[in-house]
Amino acid sequence: MTENLRNRYLQTRNRSLQLAADFSPEDCMISATPDASPLKWHLAHTSWFFENFILVQLFEREAFSAEFHYLFNSYYKAEGAHLHRSMRSIISRPGLSEIYHYREHVDREISRLFETEIDTAASFELKRRIIIGIEHEQQHQELMLTDIKRNLFANPMVPALSNKKIESEQVPALEWLQFPEGIYQAGTGSPENNIDFSFDNERPCHNVFLTAFQIANRPVCNAEFLRFIENGGYQNAAWWLSDAWDLITREKIHNPLYWQMKNGKWYEYRADGLRLLDENKPAVHISFYEAEAYARFANCRLPSEFEWETAMASVHSLNALNFEQPVHPSYARSSNSEIYLGGVWEWTSSAYLPYPGFQAEAGSLGEYNGKFMNNQRVLRGGSCATPENHARLTYRNFFPGEAGWQFSGIRLAKDIK
Amino acid sequence: MTENLRNRYLQTRNRSLQLAADFSPEDCMISATPDASPLKWHLAHTSWFFENFILVQLFEREAFSAEFHYLFNSYYKAEGAHLHRSMRSIISRPGLSEIYHYREHVDREISRLFETEIDTAASFELKRRIIIGIEHEQQHQELMLTDIKRNLFANPMVPALSNKKIESEQVPALEWLQFPEGIYQAGTGSPENNIDFSFDNERPCHNVFLTAFQIANRPVCNAEFLRFIENGGYQNAAWWLSDAWDLITREKIHNPLYWQMKNGKWYEYRADGLRLLDENKPAVHISFYEAEAYARFANCRLPSEFEWETAMASVHSLNALNFEQPVHPSYARSSNSEIYLGGVWEWTSSAYLPYPGFQAEAGSLGEYNGKFMNNQRVLRGGSCATPENHARLTYRNFFPGEAGWQFSGIRLAKDIK
Amino acid sequence: MTENLRNRYLQTRNRSLQLAADFSPEDCMISATPDASPLKWHLAHTSWFFENFILVQLFEREAFSAEFHYLFNSYYKAEGAHLHRSMRSIISRPGLSEIYHYREHVDREISRLFETEIDTAASFELKRRIIIGIEHEQQHQELMLTDIKRNLFANPMVPALSNKKIESEQVPALEWLQFPEGIYQAGTGSPENNIDFSFDNERPCHNVFLTAFQIANRPVCNAEFLRFIENGGYQNAAWWLSDAWDLITREKIHNPLYWQMKNGKWYEYRADGLRLLDENKPAVHISFYEAEAYARFANCRLPSEFEWETAMASVHSLNALNFEQPVHPSYARSSNSEIYLGGVWEWTSSAYLPYPGFQAEAGSLGEYNGKFMNNQRVLRGGSCATPENHARLTYRNFFPGEAGWQFSGIRLAKDIK
Amino acid sequence: MTENLRNRYLQTRNRSLQLAADFSPEDCMISATPDASPLKWHLAHTSWFFENFILVQLFEREAFSAEFHYLFNSYYKAEGAHLHRSMRSIISRPGLSEIYHYREHVDREISRLFETEIDTAASFELKRRIIIGIEHEQQHQELMLTDIKRNLFANPMVPALSNKKIESEQVPALEWLQFPEGIYQAGTGSPENNIDFSFDNERPCHNVFLTAFQIANRPVCNAEFLRFIENGGYQNAAWWLSDAWDLITREKIHNPLYWQMKNGKWYEYRADGLRLLDENKPAVHISFYEAEAYARFANCRLPSEFEWETAMASVHSLNALNFEQPVHPSYARSSNSEIYLGGVWEWTSSAYLPYPGFQAEAGSLGEYNGKFMNNQRVLRGGSCATPENHARLTYRNFFPGEAGWQFSGIRLAKDIK
Repeated sequence: MTENLRNRYLQTRNRSLQLAADFSPEDCMISATPDASPLKWHLAHTSWFFENFILVQLFEREAFSAEFHYLFNSYYKAEGAHLHRSMRSIISRPGLSEIYHYREHVDREISRLFETEIDTAASFELKRRIIIGIEHEQQHQELMLTDIKRNLFANPMVPALSNKKIESEQVPALEWLQFPEGIYQAGTGSPENNIDFSFDNERPCHNVFLTAFQIANRPVCNAEFLRFIENGGYQNAAWWLSDAWDLITREKIHNPLYWQMKNGKWYEYRADGLRLLDENKPAVHISFYEAEAYARFANCRLPSEFEWETAMASVHSLNALNFEQPVHPSYARSSNSEIYLGGVWEWTSSAYLPYPGFQAEAGSLGEYNGKFMNNQRVLRGGSCATPENHARLTYRNFFPGEAGWQFSGIRLAKDIK
Repeated sequence: MTENLRNRYLQTRNRSLQLAADFSPEDCMISATPDASPLKWHLAHTSWFFENFILVQLFEREAFSAEFHYLFNSYYKAEGAHLHRSMRSIISRPGLSEIYHYREHVDREISRLFETEIDTAASFELKRRIIIGIEHEQQHQELMLTDIKRNLFANPMVPALSNKKIESEQVPALEWLQFPEGIYQAGTGSPENNIDFSFDNERPCHNVFLTAFQIANRPVCNAEFLRFIENGGYQNAAWWLSDAWDLITREKIHNPLYWQMKNGKWYEYRADGLRLLDENKPAVHISFYEAEAYARFANCRLPSEFEWETAMASVHSLNALNFEQPVHPSYARSSNSEIYLGGVWEWTSSAYLPYPGFQAEAGSLGEYNGKFMNNQRVLRGGSCATPENHARLTYRNFFPGEAGWQFSGIRLAKDIK
Repeated sequence: MTENLRNRYLQTRNRSLQLAADFSPEDCMISATPDASPLKWHLAHTSWFFENFILVQLFEREAFSAEFHYLFNSYYKAEGAHLHRSMRSIISRPGLSEIYHYREHVDREISRLFETEIDTAASFELKRRIIIGIEHEQQHQELMLTDIKRNLFANPMVPALSNKKIESEQVPALEWLQFPEGIYQAGTGSPENNIDFSFDNERPCHNVFLTAFQIANRPVCNAEFLRFIENGGYQNAAWWLSDAWDLITREKIHNPLYWQMKNGKWYEYRADGLRLLDENKPAVHISFYEAEAYARFANCRLPSEFEWETAMASVHSLNALNFEQPVHPSYARSSNSEIYLGGVWEWTSSAYLPYPGFQAEAGSLGEYNGKFMNNQRVLRGGSCATPENHARLTYRNFFPGEAGWQFSGIRLAKDIK
Repeated sequence: MTENLRNRYLQTRNRSLQLAADFSPEDCMISATPDASPLKWHLAHTSWFFENFILVQLFEREAFSAEFHYLFNSYYKAEGAHLHRSMRSIISRPGLSEIYHYREHVDREISRLFETEIDTAASFELKRRIIIGIEHEQQHQELMLTDIKRNLFANPMVPALSNKKIESEQVPALEWLQFPEGIYQAGTGSPENNIDFSFDNERPCHNVFLTAFQIANRPVCNAEFLRFIENGGYQNAAWWLSDAWDLITREKIHNPLYWQMKNGKWYEYRADGLRLLDENKPAVHISFYEAEAYARFANCRLPSEFEWETAMASVHSLNALNFEQPVHPSYARSSNSEIYLGGVWEWTSSAYLPYPGFQAEAGSLGEYNGKFMNNQRVLRGGSCATPENHARLTYRNFFPGEAGWQFSGIRLAKDIK
């Protein structure tokens, strides 16, 4: 496993550099909202994570820089004071080249551990933290893609992220899959030091009782969501949660984040720039509030995360899709499966809460998940921006109901009566 | 049942008047926060509810006043524009005496329906709405008590609500009740037109799978919560949800809403004024954020609403307590029960979400519950301010995590390992 | 003078009661914005002023109530902590009847001083403070009228303040009065203990050099201001100060505070309710920002306060008008004067700044004026709401540029080239 | 004059490049507050100014880029919509190198005009606009220095702007200069197309009447301001304007912007980094609120802008100082003058208002000054950051009372009694 792990470490670290390579040091600094951090900050924070939780905590190395510790800690209160997230775009110094230097330093030191430490008695905890660090960096790789898109969208020139054009496609016919009531299993028992990694929020494996339900074989497409808009969906309080209605009336929201009406036509901001809305693409960058309103309009509902997990158990690989640049969702299915993925995270109706018997990770790594279990909704699956090997059946992604800058979409569900 | 219902109607309407009787027209106008409405507004809104959903909608009577319709609709968007809740304290006109006049008008008209309409074919829907209106007014009776307390607390003179003194008591010894894993029932099938009324959010009755758990025989007392404070509970991020920590650091919160430190001693604002903290009373006006942090500090957790419902099924009556003026919680139990109630709503860990198969009430009455199922937590039981006959096992109360102006407290739970 | 002063004291105190007499205790509590205090607060604060600065400070009497001291100090920091102005509508207790009781107490005690203290050696300072207290209460009498109007306007029922109807009138023909360049005198030397009272901000008398100017013989009327609106005045950045433009675009302001467009017609909220706009009335409740924009649109400018004082020196009495209920501006002039007043405070172009040689009143009474000399504009003259004998040539009223709830209007000026 | 003008143009344009040369493209992007724009934006906006008002408006050239027009218009509403100033740090694209390219384009086109257009009939207006453009760019050069200082200060690493160390010095002895009452001249008649340029806000030359006054021979030094702090100056409401007191209590301000207390010692952030406070340096980065409070504490006042202009008329050159890098104020005087300058803009007590007879520049260039004449105070003189040949006796700088990020200080004045 060690060689394997070293390779995964290096590949992961390398992929972050590849993701940033298309962007100038200036691009890597911008932040349009406190939610969407600069690429430079992601590059530094993921390195700080390895440095702090392994080099400093396990091996008592001196920190590379006390100031980096302050700048690049995200929210680990147990690790001391940190820069407020709204200030991340002020970091012109250290410059991007210094961050690359910092990454090299961390990689050199971690690599050395593979040679000297990995087979000692302490190696169990070391491996555990390396794996967590890899999964953590993969999460930030997805955020790098969503954040740079959000940040460049704030530029009035709405620049494209890529020169390649996104191809059109066909929408698979809609079908409904049925599941009877009964006891099902959810979550996983895989410990975090295993090759079958899981975060603490996915554990433990436990029983849930589900009422009979049906679920759509594919996510909602743009044509469908467009019908909601054209039927006055954003003007009818009946479809919306109270908080959602307050938000869209207060902020005058009439469409998903990246949709724009120009001269009577709908456009969508995508990796290839601002383009005429392609009705055959999966609806994406939909907030939970929008997803939930759409579902009510469609006389359906969103699935719970347990219904979702039950229905998707048959899908061979949530990473079977050929996710290529430019990053944009499309429909695909594994062979032998009747279920289409759409390259979007799928909102569930479930609040993000601890499973029965949940134990937060020990130490300050325990701040990773548990403390965010409030006023957020669970998303399941993975998106066109999710790194390969990062998606899995029990993975619980989570965002607040108003968040739309992730690659998030809608899979409908219904009761069986 | 008709005579019965007429009596319940009149008793309920009368009790609202009694609740307001201790307060001057000036007291009845104040509102310290948008959450805590003036008593006058409650008196008018509960009348509007009967007028609008019965007299106007069912019997096509003309509205008493188009302006009252605007002023006293709370949030039913389908019923048209309404006054923003932050403006409720501006209503000097209509004066309180005009509101009493309005109440009399509504009562006269509804009473007449009992004589003429109640046995016609339309009476099913009429009865249904009268029952909903009664339950609705009972909810507002509790709010009248919590709101006048909150509003008078904002007066620098912190006046008492009552001249009677609150008696001290003994705290029952703490014990843990055990429940094995298995399938349990939750919710109710009672339709809303039944004498066994339920709101739509309590329906349908359905199965849940629970892991084995234990639950405390009584709510947490002041002495216990005080220990949390004295151990630096409000200064240690480890106990708090991330949102909660942001809130208490931003707003410099160091204690529950009604606690005050003066000259080195803790005081609590109660119905009998600002008093030295009584360590033997149930901790009350605790927010969910505080309850959840306390539970973590105590190495426990909050029960889910289904665990709570399971554990409390043995309690004969949630209204067995002798709730007397002045309104303040105290410990008590029904005969033959080992479980103590504490006169406080009990926070659960459950997010406020629809049950499987949930159907919102038809028409604009459907705005009652479903649209608020977002970013709120469920409270169960009832409090010293809950009207008699209003508490029941399946009742789901709900407030946001930061809300502390309700009579809310903490019952602890734990896993069985 | 003593008898005279006693009479003025009693008349002034009595007039405040008359002003409040038309309103219920509930009306007397409301506050629609932190700017517009409840009538009850005005009644209490003016009494506190006499109590604190005379009974307590000069005669070392015990305060009537420590809590009243906290509640009814407006902003005198040297007098200790005080209630934030945004909380004034929370004061249901003390009730209005207790405030009347408080007023009687203060009047009884002050009256006693007239019998026993007024001719002692200390009487100079006593008289000085009684006179300041009278002038102070007169200022609050004007605020009582502007504030109750503002506060009732926030009620969706927009109730009238009076049953009497406001009569229409003719607009005097516009003429321009010429003044040559030269040295003029401004301000006054009258000490504050004199029958010819002045506030510190009007002193000392000093020279100013004025360039030749001309000034209108009357304030702008509604017909004229309406032309500004109909010419797109609120949509054209060219007329507006930068701060003003930011404000009206951010807050979507398209008309003066009390104007409303309904079914294609303009209405104005006046003492007699919401009425069709009377084009022949002086434009009133105009903010400085609006006045300044209008002047630029009209190819004129506002007069400086020194131009105003120079031009108005010939007017016999700024109180010559028969200001009757219901309170609303109208055109009138003294015999032998060619200048029309319009029952409105007249905005000047002058920032509110100290005169050369300005000395603030000694002690905490010095907080009266000087500390507000920042980001405010001077208004001159007086309005239909100004108490008799309170208006004078050198009087400097002041409000921020956005304030429109005073009876404020526009007199135009121009250079002579 | 033409050759002269061409040289001034090129020198000015070149100096902007020199100012930016010390900073990386990343440094050139940051903006810590909406007040402090990124250097890149300054570089682009000053070019847009020449392009728009000369190439596009006078010579009907096509704009270099419609998007640049949107991005780099600051606030000229007549020129169309523009980016909100709070969004200036989002502009990663165009990159800094593209901005340099843009500057070259503008310089090439303007240079060509010098060869072909400068002696035609249209040249009067052309020259006028080139001169305004030069003066405009010089203003932005000062802002480049104040803004990069402010922006880097927001970096927790508080980096120095320069490697050179700032030398210490002696504070000149304090003396008072006397001026009798009388009529004095203020402002200038120099038209804006003259070598003796003036902005519209400095015109026309006019008479003012001044009361006798005295003024200090030098600005206040750090030792003096420190005494204010050590005497509890920031804790005593008596020294502060009401708005100022509200601000410093609300925002917990206890010292000037760049002062910091660490381990019981005062530090100041300067061009050479965070340094122990040098008591012999002029107090700098003082807001008007602080200056005015200090003056009251010192039993003095600030001079009016007319007193200042009168007193400084004897100073040969306001640019006589040897302003070298690193940019920081120091005391110096011209030969034959008894008045010391301190390298700081000097706050006056004057509100920023139009002079009698003021005429705004024609066209959209008229938005330059007049529309900002509201809620700002006039500063006079110039600072260590003011470009050579830009300071002059009649120059009126202006900022809001709370602004402290300019190189602003305090010269005291007093009445003569």
